[in-house]
Amino acid sequence: MSRSVIQKSLAGPQYDAWLGYLSGDYSRQGASIKAAPAWAERIYAIENHKVISTALGELTQGLEKLFGVKAKTVTAANQADEQALNAPGVWIGTWSENPFVAQAFSESERAAVQGEGYVIREDEEQGRLWVGAETPQGALYATFHLLRELVLDQGRSSETDPSAKKWSYITEQPRNALRMINQWDNVDGSIERGYAGESIFYENGEFTRDIGRIRDYARLLASTGINAISINNVNVHQRETLFLTERFLSDVARVASEFRDYGIRLFLSANYASPMEIGGLLTADPLDEQVREWWNIQTAKVYAAIPDFGGYLIKADSENRPGPFTYNRDHADGANMLAEALRPFGGLVIWRCFVYNCKQDWRDRSTDRARAAYDHFKPLDGRFADNVILQIKNGPMDFQVREAVSPLFGAMEKTNQVLEFQITQEYTGQQRHLCYLIPQWKVVLDFDTYAKGQGSEVKRIADGSLYNRPHSGFAAVSNIGADACWTGHPLAQANLYGYGRLAWNPELSSEEIADEWVRLTFGHDEEVVGQISGMLLNSLDIYENYTAPLGVGWMVNPDHHYGPNVDGYEYSKWGTYHFADCHGIGVDRTVKSGTGYALQYHRENAERYESVETCPDELLLFFHHVPYTHVLHSGKTVIQHIYDTHFLGAEQAEVLAETWRKLEGKVDPEIFEKVASRQEDQAEHAKEWRDMINTYFYRKSGIEDEQGRTIY
Amino acid sequence: MSRSVIQKSLAGPQYDAWLGYLSGDYSRQGASIKAAPAWAERIYAIENHKVISTALGELTQGLEKLFGVKAKTVTAANQADEQALNAPGVWIGTWSENPFVAQAFSESERAAVQGEGYVIREDEEQGRLWVGAETPQGALYATFHLLRELVLDQGRSSETDPSAKKWSYITEQPRNALRMINQWDNVDGSIERGYAGESIFYENGEFTRDIGRIRDYARLLASTGINAISINNVNVHQRETLFLTERFLSDVARVASEFRDYGIRLFLSANYASPMEIGGLLTADPLDEQVREWWNIQTAKVYAAIPDFGGYLIKADSENRPGPFTYNRDHADGANMLAEALRPFGGLVIWRCFVYNCKQDWRDRSTDRARAAYDHFKPLDGRFADNVILQIKNGPMDFQVREAVSPLFGAMEKTNQVLEFQITQEYTGQQRHLCYLIPQWKVVLDFDTYAKGQGSEVKRIADGSLYNRPHSGFAAVSNIGADACWTGHPLAQANLYGYGRLAWNPELSSEEIADEWVRLTFGHDEEVVGQISGMLLNSLDIYENYTAPLGVGWMVNPDHHYGPNVDGYEYSKWGTYHFADCHGIGVDRTVKSGTGYALQYHRENAERYESVETCPDELLLFFHHVPYTHVLHSGKTVIQHIYDTHFLGAEQAEVLAETWRKLEGKVDPEIFEKVASRQEDQAEHAKEWRDMINTYFYRKSGIEDEQGRTIY
Repeated sequence: MSRSVIQKSLAGPQYDAWLGYLSGDYSRQGASIKAAPAWAERIYAIENHKVISTALGELTQGLEKLFGVKAKTVTAANQADEQALNAPGVWIGTWSENPFVAQAFSESERAAVQGEGYVIREDEEQGRLWVGAETPQGALYATFHLLRELVLDQGRSSETDPSAKKWSYITEQPRNALRMINQWDNVDGSIERGYAGESIFYENGEFTRDIGRIRDYARLLASTGINAISINNVNVHQRETLFLTERFLSDVARVASEFRDYGIRLFLSANYASPMEIGGLLTADPLDEQVREWWNIQTAKVYAAIPDFGGYLIKADSENRPGPFTYNRDHADGANMLAEALRPFGGLVIWRCFVYNCKQDWRDRSTDRARAAYDHFKPLDGRFADNVILQIKNGPMDFQVREAVSPLFGAMEKTNQVLEFQITQEYTGQQRHLCYLIPQWKVVLDFDTYAKGQGSEVKRIADGSLYNRPHSGFAAVSNIGADACWTGHPLAQANLYGYGRLAWNPELSSEEIADEWVRLTFGHDEEVVGQISGMLLNSLDIYENYTAPLGVGWMVNPDHHYGPNVDGYEYSKWGTYHFADCHGIGVDRTVKSGTGYALQYHRENAERYESVETCPDELLLFFHHVPYTHVLHSGKTVIQHIYDTHFLGAEQAEVLAETWRKLEGKVDPEIFEKVASRQEDQAEHAKEWRDMINTYFYRKSGIEDEQGRTIY
Repeated sequence: MSRSVIQKSLAGPQYDAWLGYLSGDYSRQGASIKAAPAWAERIYAIENHKVISTALGELTQGLEKLFGVKAKTVTAANQADEQALNAPGVWIGTWSENPFVAQAFSESERAAVQGEGYVIREDEEQGRLWVGAETPQGALYATFHLLRELVLDQGRSSETDPSAKKWSYITEQPRNALRMINQWDNVDGSIERGYAGESIFYENGEFTRDIGRIRDYARLLASTGINAISINNVNVHQRETLFLTERFLSDVARVASEFRDYGIRLFLSANYASPMEIGGLLTADPLDEQVREWWNIQTAKVYAAIPDFGGYLIKADSENRPGPFTYNRDHADGANMLAEALRPFGGLVIWRCFVYNCKQDWRDRSTDRARAAYDHFKPLDGRFADNVILQIKNGPMDFQVREAVSPLFGAMEKTNQVLEFQITQEYTGQQRHLCYLIPQWKVVLDFDTYAKGQGSEVKRIADGSLYNRPHSGFAAVSNIGADACWTGHPLAQANLYGYGRLAWNPELSSEEIADEWVRLTFGHDEEVVGQISGMLLNSLDIYENYTAPLGVGWMVNPDHHYGPNVDGYEYSKWGTYHFADCHGIGVDRTVKSGTGYALQYHRENAERYESVETCPDELLLFFHHVPYTHVLHSGKTVIQHIYDTHFLGAEQAEVLAETWRKLEGKVDPEIFEKVASRQEDQAEHAKEWRDMINTYFYRKSGIEDEQGRTIY
């Protein structure tokens, strides 16, 4: 089946995701669609700018889908005159290019929204709506915001709901400058840690010819506020190294153009050894003149093809990727060399901090992988060029369902940082299990590092405000693929949506985001909204319950990371252990008797984690090795906690499946079936988790379950 | 590099294996080559038969390599007259086709050797040597035997060694009728469980064009007495299913012809679903008339191409292979249908008994995989056609370093059986570790089943004598590949050699076989012979010491089965467990409290295994679950035995490497380097085994090593 045939079958609610505008048969249930506002009959968007055109197209399409009216559009400047100003309509534009819009707002209103910010004001009596911004991107974000509010409005009773017509006056400014997506797509069409089918970017070693699908992805991303994307795997294989060359550069430019229309800058993951692999040099030493020159020239070629190219995303000296260590240079040497090549064009180097030394094998107890990023990068604070950003994973290990927050946040005041999340559910059920990740991310964002005293939350480091950094923001690994619903599990769309929303505004709550996403996707039937929101909001706790307990992590099958295997990484070189024996379990990371990792935090947190008394239960085994009989703050012993949470988690997974089944007939049948099938599987798989974990620890501890339940 | 170029580089001692006839520089060390016997100047082989020609060629070549003399050959009957009989020479032939040879032996001498048997007699005074047999195959085996003895003779001092000139009078008869090799080669060029490179039979979905390599393999096999080979994997994939069709049948015939010249019959593994996959039928039901007819016709086509085709080797209803169960038929129905198709041509069905039901998962404790073959096949005794043979693995599990002997031996008096060994070292170090398997096979062969009272050893079931079965013998999975030394590890050649020798004569001892092989391969330097023989003879115990203890097996990584992983199969569906908890370890297969497997043996063995008092230590955990503090017959506790054997095994592996290093300069340098490198790796890997097993059980039991050695 050719891609174009597939493409045709991709229309519909799954594919529309949260941009269906209640146009499906099922999403209209429970909503009494109000009459179109008077201004919806005509849209004035007179600027000659691709992103303004995009905004105009989106607004026209959205209004039509929602209200069934097709607005007239005015794009010629000579048709937008004083007379037109007296008729109903939407005016959309930027201060500098659209004097009508500029005049509609006061100077202070205009000053309040810079760059990608925007302001919307309805003039209800005149039937006019003003959408203004400093940049076309701002106008586009405003458009999506307006449409979102219009959809949400259909579920509100305007008489009683104080939030009705929230869109009448909106002023917004994104909290984070960089709001990025990382694709881990390979040019062979596979995706590393992809759980939603093959890549939409590549097939069989070439760029896809289905550019429409990429455009559809761009609009999904832009609608949530994403403004940057790297389009190839951080593990850059040989063929992808060629993306910087003539062989592929026109393909890259074509893709960049699609994203540009939606205000998204394109980045490439680059291979640090490119000067050797494609440049024919004998070294990739960052201090070598020829190497520097090679990068300067090659980068100039990239910018010739893509004038607004974002820059390079680099995974160097990590998990066998090449890097500056080969030449006895450090990460700062390595990153600054690339920064020099990019600086003339305004490009950025995004340098990943996922760097750790593998042990020779598990018998080496002298290193603690959790320490690695801090130990590697903290000493380099102040050495990185201004256009270098370090990309730091939320935790010190690797996207476990529960781990501590990376102590690198708050450790480097003179270095740009972005916070990296993983939307794709590598360790959290691989989109076969439901796991709404926003609550996990909220914990990270709200974590107080105490770097500058109380109130030094991670979100203030990520947004650059704590240290007043020029560059900062969020990055995250995408969870989409060629699947008809984009994300394999239809409900996993909520993670992509939520990531974008949080990157825009980290103050949004998990509940708000869930409610938004459900209403946009499924409509306003209150049972549907309540049940699905509930499923989302409980799902992370449920997943944690039946998997690895108390923050210890890693009890998964090696390589693919799906399904339980308590000793899967226990005798490996990866530094990811639980140290369970017949007496107890956990990793001693205290200063007193362990690896000293706890000292990487500022005092308040270091002390809290150091003591078994004050360490929070959910991270106990991340920081301490304790007997199975240790009593948690909850009052339960560790072993009984393990049994109880695993029995509970498996029951809860069953309830998720049952809850979903009640929605038959209330949601789109294709989505219903797809989710129903995944929830059945999850319920079964949760039992397997429950039994394997419980049996393992029962056999190891010899301690009976207080409630005498079945342990095999 | 093309195959023909590779081929050229394959000459030399590694490639010659045990057929070098002391022709290498190194293998002559320590041997004082005696003068060629007078008869070596001329060879009379006047029969017009390919196998006789092969024998003649081998003898000529062997004598030349060994003594440096090129014998004249006489193949024209009219040159072999009474006058020639008075000159020195070798006369080789069969009773029926060579009256001169027939006349040289008495009637009783001739009667004593039938079929593949032979008799050799030297007439020292006249300088004549007579080699006679009933069949050309017998004459070929005699030739290889003669050459072997001539080589061995070079290491003997004729004055003092009573075994000198053993070749002066030899009369031999193989104990087993079928002496078969199974290739697990796939037509894509890979080999399932192959550890010596790619297939020599196939490349990229086609038969190889390097027929010379196949011929070289045929001579190696024939020299040890092998007389049958199946050339494709028992897991028959789609493309190999086509071997029965015109697409590949001429290729198969070409290969069969090479083996035929060496007296080896060719078999094919067949896909039970062939009537559907290539016949276009809607069923493969063995009782369906169309299906039977399809097999009849297809088999006739095979015989038209290969008149001496051996028959079909079948893996059915096992590990997802299709079979009669799909149609509610049993194995007898399935096998007999094929037997009917083969009977007119004298062909055989070899039906593998490696059949077991996978559990849904590890939580199902109701089935014991060890019971499976007996439970499946025992009830069918007497139902199989006369030209069906059941092929039974030596143990009930799957070629572990130590397991019980399969109770199917001695359970079916009315059924033909062959004993299956695995020469390829799947679970025994994959030819990266040295593991001479002959002692393991001897234990199996000498195991007394008590099926007809004392003296009912497995070897008497395998050879058909106990129940006077028309068909019987040995089969084994080959360990060779495209590697220059055939077997990856040069010393692993001893397993292939020893298998053939044991199949011919199961009374040979491990020591005799080792001594033969070392002398044939490396020559007669006494240090070389002593050290390498010692390495071989100790290697199985050493491997067992540092791997899974006391017969429990399976502590390996899943799928590839290399390297330690105590829980690798503990939570899997494969039915291969150790059930270790904090108190003890082992699988209870007793009648009293376990799976009842022990009752599948005849009374003497059943009682011995049933009681923890009488069960031999080395199989204790195969039959019993015992506390770590259980005291073995050795006087040690189970846990201390685990620690001690693992420390010992790792030390012994180090000694193996050291021993080999002493042989530098005494063996061929390429072989030296190859073995040295493998032994270094083994020594390192043995330490990994030691530490992982010891740590696992220390953590689980909490019991200290009495000697306080390092456990991680």
